[in-house]
Amino acid sequence: MAVAQEARTLPSAFASSAPPDAARRVMARLDALALVSQEEGRLTRTYLSEAHRQAVDLVSRWMREAGMSVRLDDAATLIGRYDPGSGEFAGRRTLLLGSHLDTVRDAGRYDGMLGVVTAIEAVRELAQEQQELPFAIEVLAFGDEEGVRFPRTLTGSRAAAGALAPDDLSACDADGITLADALRNFGCDPDRIAEATRKREDLIGYVELHIEQGRVLEKAGRALGLVSGISGAKRARFVLKGKVGHAGTTAMDDRRDALTCAAEMILAIERRASETDGLVMTVGTLELAGAGVNVVPGAVGFSLDLRAFDDAIREREYEAVVADCEAIAARRRVSIRAEVFYEETTVPCEQALVATLKKVLAQRGEDDALSLPSMAGHDGLAMARICPIAMLFVRCRDGASHSPDEHVDLEDIAASVEALTGFVRQLGHQFRAEA
Amino acid sequence: MAVAQEARTLPSAFASSAPPDAARRVMARLDALALVSQEEGRLTRTYLSEAHRQAVDLVSRWMREAGMSVRLDDAATLIGRYDPGSGEFAGRRTLLLGSHLDTVRDAGRYDGMLGVVTAIEAVRELAQEQQELPFAIEVLAFGDEEGVRFPRTLTGSRAAAGALAPDDLSACDADGITLADALRNFGCDPDRIAEATRKREDLIGYVELHIEQGRVLEKAGRALGLVSGISGAKRARFVLKGKVGHAGTTAMDDRRDALTCAAEMILAIERRASETDGLVMTVGTLELAGAGVNVVPGAVGFSLDLRAFDDAIREREYEAVVADCEAIAARRRVSIRAEVFYEETTVPCEQALVATLKKVLAQRGEDDALSLPSMAGHDGLAMARICPIAMLFVRCRDGASHSPDEHVDLEDIAASVEALTGFVRQLGHQFRAEA
Repeated sequence: MAVAQEARTLPSAFASSAPPDAARRVMARLDALALVSQEEGRLTRTYLSEAHRQAVDLVSRWMREAGMSVRLDDAATLIGRYDPGSGEFAGRRTLLLGSHLDTVRDAGRYDGMLGVVTAIEAVRELAQEQQELPFAIEVLAFGDEEGVRFPRTLTGSRAAAGALAPDDLSACDADGITLADALRNFGCDPDRIAEATRKREDLIGYVELHIEQGRVLEKAGRALGLVSGISGAKRARFVLKGKVGHAGTTAMDDRRDALTCAAEMILAIERRASETDGLVMTVGTLELAGAGVNVVPGAVGFSLDLRAFDDAIREREYEAVVADCEAIAARRRVSIRAEVFYEETTVPCEQALVATLKKVLAQRGEDDALSLPSMAGHDGLAMARICPIAMLFVRCRDGASHSPDEHVDLEDIAASVEALTGFVRQLGHQFRAEA
Repeated sequence: MAVAQEARTLPSAFASSAPPDAARRVMARLDALALVSQEEGRLTRTYLSEAHRQAVDLVSRWMREAGMSVRLDDAATLIGRYDPGSGEFAGRRTLLLGSHLDTVRDAGRYDGMLGVVTAIEAVRELAQEQQELPFAIEVLAFGDEEGVRFPRTLTGSRAAAGALAPDDLSACDADGITLADALRNFGCDPDRIAEATRKREDLIGYVELHIEQGRVLEKAGRALGLVSGISGAKRARFVLKGKVGHAGTTAMDDRRDALTCAAEMILAIERRASETDGLVMTVGTLELAGAGVNVVPGAVGFSLDLRAFDDAIREREYEAVVADCEAIAARRRVSIRAEVFYEETTVPCEQALVATLKKVLAQRGEDDALSLPSMAGHDGLAMARICPIAMLFVRCRDGASHSPDEHVDLEDIAASVEALTGFVRQLGHQFRAEA
């Protein structure tokens, strides 16, 4: 701890470069968490599973070891609190750090966990310095960012933000277990879930560190990047009805094939996304009704996921896609119905928090830190309803995401811990300066 | 029966125009069979089901009423035999007529049943005339033309032709019931199924009347058409492997999307079929592996059904499709595997039988009867292995097929009965002339 001791004597928020053993400890903990899985031979850890319980136990130990008091709220968000203050600051508030512990199926070991474990490491370092802070810190480890088990997502952060919907608790998993029952089995009390909602006036903001899930930082040769905001998304379901036909006897000209119609739409969607800056579109699911090898498909359904940081572009391009598809359907004598079933507007990161992060990166030697949008959703989407948010992205090899291929270099983990620690110190300076 | 009595005194094979009550009886019987279903509110009757049993009972009564002796072979083919001969023809053989009693799910009432019921009506008429014939007639009602219940098809006609495969009897339905057990439950003896094979030297040929399942006759304004043969088919499975990606964070340029790749192939297949005479191609099934609304598809499988009457065109075009798809896959950095899993070469109808049918249609006033290929498979595909085959097509409104929309006009049913009766008489003339 020699380095940390020394750091306290230096003026800069970035005086302490994270000790190599901090990065190694983070990596070892990520490796340990990667073994906590509900499936053998690969990492899958869904909300309120036994594996989630084991992860909570493990992370609780690390939080306590770092000097935090630990509790689990009634949405199964694990909360470690570090409050080293002397009470000299009136209206003492709380800075939230963190990310999530749940994973997709066959996941990588960094998505979510990196943000939780580096935040714990940052708190550990500050605690060992015994530095007073003008605010408390809480590390949040959400349980449902990926939305794999229930047809819901961001359950923990929505509970914290007071943004649960009335029917969320009755949502069922594939085995017919309701979210309420699953919470009860986990030791939570769904009847008291409203108490998980944080008080707006208590919060400074929510800052999350996360792998980029893209290749912008890698291409630019940067370990870290500032997130400008979390892109909004629109998801729609398209249903096409043509006419079933016999694969042998229905002449090509007489067909009203719903699948060839869908194929033309999928290519039109791909083309439009490729040609439009700031837009990505994905047809991720497609099903045929009453299909057979020897049957001309009569009905097809598919999903569209459309993301653009600019809300206006997203709206305009969705309307354009619907118009494209309607024209294709009409020409092919196929009926079409399009229905939006999910919609989030873009949530910008808060300017002041981003400015502080930018300063920290500049202290680290990056005067021109990259700023990039998050095209993936994160708990910040929900948290933004109750407090300012900001995010830091960490370079991940090949932009791998939701895959065991995710990989973060040890030095980038060191940079992550440094950045979080530096951010807390810098924010402390600012609070004291403003006081 | 006044008309039929009168008919006997006339020279032409077509002397008797089928009495309107014959067509009405056929229609009433088709209506009755349409009610014999294993699903409420729609016609579904799969091989060896309870509905199949009821259909066999009903049709057996009609066969007996028409003057036939009835038996069920060990492949559950119902066989009605009419042998009015005096023994004056040495080496007396058998003419096979018929079609099938099983249906697809939510079927029409004509596919298969029309051929069985009109054949019974033809025999009924001949029997009532008490006309001697230089051959016996058997009406075959096969039980498995559609191949819906087991992953097998043409089981009855393949048994009759001695063309069952060793593993056919162990094929399982969706409930895990083997074909052998289903036969046993139906009262058949699968261990003696080889005895269902007919003796080649006993058979004159197999002649089937069937709805067209296309619009050629309708467009030409003809009730009946001569079938030139049964088109061969090739079925293949294509498997594409790209790379799973996050729908938000994977840039369009970085994607190896298996679904957009499949979409481009499906359109290339459609274009090729549309531009090539005598070729139809259908992608009838498509599945995504590990799909999600917010996931760039990493793997897609789809089926191709390719039909062309000309075997050379079929082979050439299949190779061309594979080449098309390989080029598309390579450009999109997606791997492709194509595997043929079903193949039938084209079976031409026998010239002499077709010439006789043509003569019968000419006697009916159609000097230039249309000749068209069957692009659908039929029991004749299997029967051709053991005897000459021929088919007559009957106009069906809008070319509807495998659908409750199938509709045949009463006058076309009358024409069908006339044609079959006329065919038997004409064949009798020819046999006597040759004797």
